[in-house]
Amino acid sequence: MSRLRYSGSISLDGFAAGPDQSRENPLGVGGRALHTWVKEREDTTSRLLEDEELGVGALLMGRNMFGGGPGPWGEEPWPGWWGPNPPFHLPVFVLTHHPRAPLECDGGTTFMFVTKGLDDALAQARQAANGQHVDICGGATVAKQYLAAGLLDEMLLHLVPVFLGAGVRLFDDETLDKVTLEQAFVVEAPGVTHLKYRVVG
Amino acid sequence: MSRLRYSGSISLDGFAAGPDQSRENPLGVGGRALHTWVKEREDTTSRLLEDEELGVGALLMGRNMFGGGPGPWGEEPWPGWWGPNPPFHLPVFVLTHHPRAPLECDGGTTFMFVTKGLDDALAQARQAANGQHVDICGGATVAKQYLAAGLLDEMLLHLVPVFLGAGVRLFDDETLDKVTLEQAFVVEAPGVTHLKYRVVG
Repeated sequence: MSRLRYSGSISLDGFAAGPDQSRENPLGVGGRALHTWVKEREDTTSRLLEDEELGVGALLMGRNMFGGGPGPWGEEPWPGWWGPNPPFHLPVFVLTHHPRAPLECDGGTTFMFVTKGLDDALAQARQAANGQHVDICGGATVAKQYLAAGLLDEMLLHLVPVFLGAGVRLFDDETLDKVTLEQAFVVEAPGVTHLKYRVVG
Repeated sequence: MSRLRYSGSISLDGFAAGPDQSRENPLGVGGRALHTWVKEREDTTSRLLEDEELGVGALLMGRNMFGGGPGPWGEEPWPGWWGPNPPFHLPVFVLTHHPRAPLECDGGTTFMFVTKGLDDALAQARQAANGQHVDICGGATVAKQYLAAGLLDEMLLHLVPVFLGAGVRLFDDETLDKVTLEQAFVVEAPGVTHLKYRVVG
């Protein structure tokens, strides 16, 4: 069954990105520490995470994750962080308030810009995924909106033993107490703990 | 070596207690869900946690954890939550702004009320511990003050897959980004993940 899933790193104090995110520093101050485990991960962890990445048919991301801050795209819109051959190789639906024509890149990545909100973006992504999973690949703001809306099915959190002190909290929505989770699996790895949860209600 | 340690449950959204704590509901709204794993824990987990509890010579706790809200103790001070035979069986140093005579209970628990702040309470507890560990047994407010002050050596977090939505956050101090952690061990158990961290800088 096609599931809506989120996978992302989180600091021990709950931040998915540091403060003062900008084009120069998209992860925010200190945010790079959330991702060092990716380079250091061991074979067993890699296999597990690669299994988790199977069966994905489309991606969802926020405007910041695609690249750039708020406001309209401008006459010569910036192509985003990801360069000519982004690492997604899938249709990517970008949630934004500003319309823009699709951006087709090398390697099978096409960015589609969706302006009609969460439900519409998810419907489009599901259609493109054609029965496979839809993964939210960031940022935290998009993930927590889908979670609070009761639309998320699974989360794979990479809990990193750092404190950022400030930034973008993944879980700061008061209505989250309506969401019921089930612990699916936990994997300890050097400098990170992988925690998989299913949303069951 | 005598270490200052904290052990406590935390929700996935970072709360160590729910909102609206009171004498009637000391864990706050929804806070009871943070502790159900204790009853359900398995033998292996129990042994691990019991090992962690060895070598403790004194405890530290906040005024709320002892019992009751802010303000002076009154003429007939309330004896706290814990009844005539509290489950601590150790000297317990209670951080408070209001002086009070020590409260000696059955079973080896004596509550000492310390009004001169974190450093003084820790010094008194260390003296009483006589080379053994000093454990902070709550609440979150006391734990995070010691952590932010650079005085905490170890944390054992019981991460529970629930969202409380509001309450007392364990990690919401902006200066925590100065603290460096090391992941010591992780244990997956039904409905909880036990995460042990050492403070290394």
